[in-house]
Amino acid sequence: MDWRAQLDAYFIPRKARVEAALAHYLSGEPPLPRVLPEAMRYAALGAGKRLRPILCIAAAESLGGDAEQVMPTACALELIHAFSLVHDDLPAMDNDRLRRGQPTVWVKYGEAMAILAGDALFAKAFELLAEQARSSPPERVVRTLRLIAEAAGVQGMCGGQVEDILNEGQAVSEATLRFIHAHKTGALIRACVLSGALLMGADATALQSLDVYSRALGLAFQITDDILDEVAPTEQIGKPAGSDRARRKATYTALFGVETARAHARHALQEALNALNGFDERANPLRWLAHYAVEREN
Amino acid sequence: MDWRAQLDAYFIPRKARVEAALAHYLSGEPPLPRVLPEAMRYAALGAGKRLRPILCIAAAESLGGDAEQVMPTACALELIHAFSLVHDDLPAMDNDRLRRGQPTVWVKYGEAMAILAGDALFAKAFELLAEQARSSPPERVVRTLRLIAEAAGVQGMCGGQVEDILNEGQAVSEATLRFIHAHKTGALIRACVLSGALLMGADATALQSLDVYSRALGLAFQITDDILDEVAPTEQIGKPAGSDRARRKATYTALFGVETARAHARHALQEALNALNGFDERANPLRWLAHYAVEREN
Repeated sequence: MDWRAQLDAYFIPRKARVEAALAHYLSGEPPLPRVLPEAMRYAALGAGKRLRPILCIAAAESLGGDAEQVMPTACALELIHAFSLVHDDLPAMDNDRLRRGQPTVWVKYGEAMAILAGDALFAKAFELLAEQARSSPPERVVRTLRLIAEAAGVQGMCGGQVEDILNEGQAVSEATLRFIHAHKTGALIRACVLSGALLMGADATALQSLDVYSRALGLAFQITDDILDEVAPTEQIGKPAGSDRARRKATYTALFGVETARAHARHALQEALNALNGFDERANPLRWLAHYAVEREN
Repeated sequence: MDWRAQLDAYFIPRKARVEAALAHYLSGEPPLPRVLPEAMRYAALGAGKRLRPILCIAAAESLGGDAEQVMPTACALELIHAFSLVHDDLPAMDNDRLRRGQPTVWVKYGEAMAILAGDALFAKAFELLAEQARSSPPERVVRTLRLIAEAAGVQGMCGGQVEDILNEGQAVSEATLRFIHAHKTGALIRACVLSGALLMGADATALQSLDVYSRALGLAFQITDDILDEVAPTEQIGKPAGSDRARRKATYTALFGVETARAHARHALQEALNALNGFDERANPLRWLAHYAVEREN
């Protein structure tokens, strides 16, 4: 079997468990506040790859854990991703009206509700980290908390988004491009992998290897996103093809051209795979995910 | 000495320590991202009463702790307060251009940066909770994390703000008004008091008393805010007098009139003081703060 079939067999049941857990954590319809719980569910429970929670689960499994042991944290990471998309789509930010073919949260519920739904999803993520302490030692939960909060903040996702906005429409250096992507998307991908490992009590050697893996993986995903935006037809990627270019976003393809970007992506894939050399077959899902990052079609 | 002089002698040195700690936690000017660290400092280090961190400290002291033992959490609570103000001021929310006489974050740095500065302050608050584990047992930190994340989220601050916005310009019932204030401002005040207590290892009896105290305190603050908005001159409260009424915000004075609102505030003060009956003189700062909530002039 090639990696695609193996990854599907691995991914699909875990995605279903993640989605059931997310629905559970976001369930409940108290009399007040109105609208907000629904807007949070709309943002978090719609279509989505669930890549981030699966990365957390796959990292835990690579060290002998299972999905249920890290499920609250896996879901927290998905909520942080959802929160970032809700805020990024706002008129003052990327001003996107559609996401995965559906109206964005601000289009459907208004801007104020979208800002607050994002904030409340972010808060819920940290509730879920506290929930993680029911099944993990609290010292490990606290280390995971630090990792995830840093990945989301000024030296992580928020910082990357700021530089992305500040550089829109401008020629950027390779260093700035790498900063943007390592922070805007890379930091949270790294946190997904490392949190799954931290919660299983990974030693320093394993953490170091997974750190290298996750940085290479994040880079591979981002370069491939940029290539797909440039070359794939609209219906394949679920957003207007060439939209990054139209908006003059900083991308790898704008900086290097498609062919050189492809070579960088293949190099990142190899780096990710090499980082897993010390791991046994329980790390195979992480290996398939690295292939997926570079060889996917959407 | 009356409570004012005693509270000043207590408050002023602790406020200085909180502000030094906040400046420390928000220091550093990495090459990237640009602007965001400055915007975060602008939002969090400007004028402010620092009431929330001092409540956390006073609760810790009422159980024999001291300020330094809870400082990361005290600062986290101030950052959550700052985050909420930055987002509440946005054009899509309250559309406020001035706060404490200065341009609001979105006026000074733009809307996108204000959204992201709020997000990054919120993330930083959770980093500081992880920092708290350097001086507190991790089990206590995890309980504090849950308390604070819940207070900020859909069944706390965000939920209260949603109902506040949805009810603007409408006649509200007393139940809705109580929901708005218990959540929009009350939940975080409660979390300040209880987190200081949790971190000192408070037993269930002390937590129960401080829970009653903090709910009454939050109510007292909010009713008094509404009264001051109605009766105090602009220069005294730092925002246009009557601005809540002009905006048709749900307030206690709109629902009950000023005199009945005053009676409710005095009743809440008494309830807060009664809740502290089992505490010795180390809880005096909490008592002075309850007087301050109701008898202050701005």
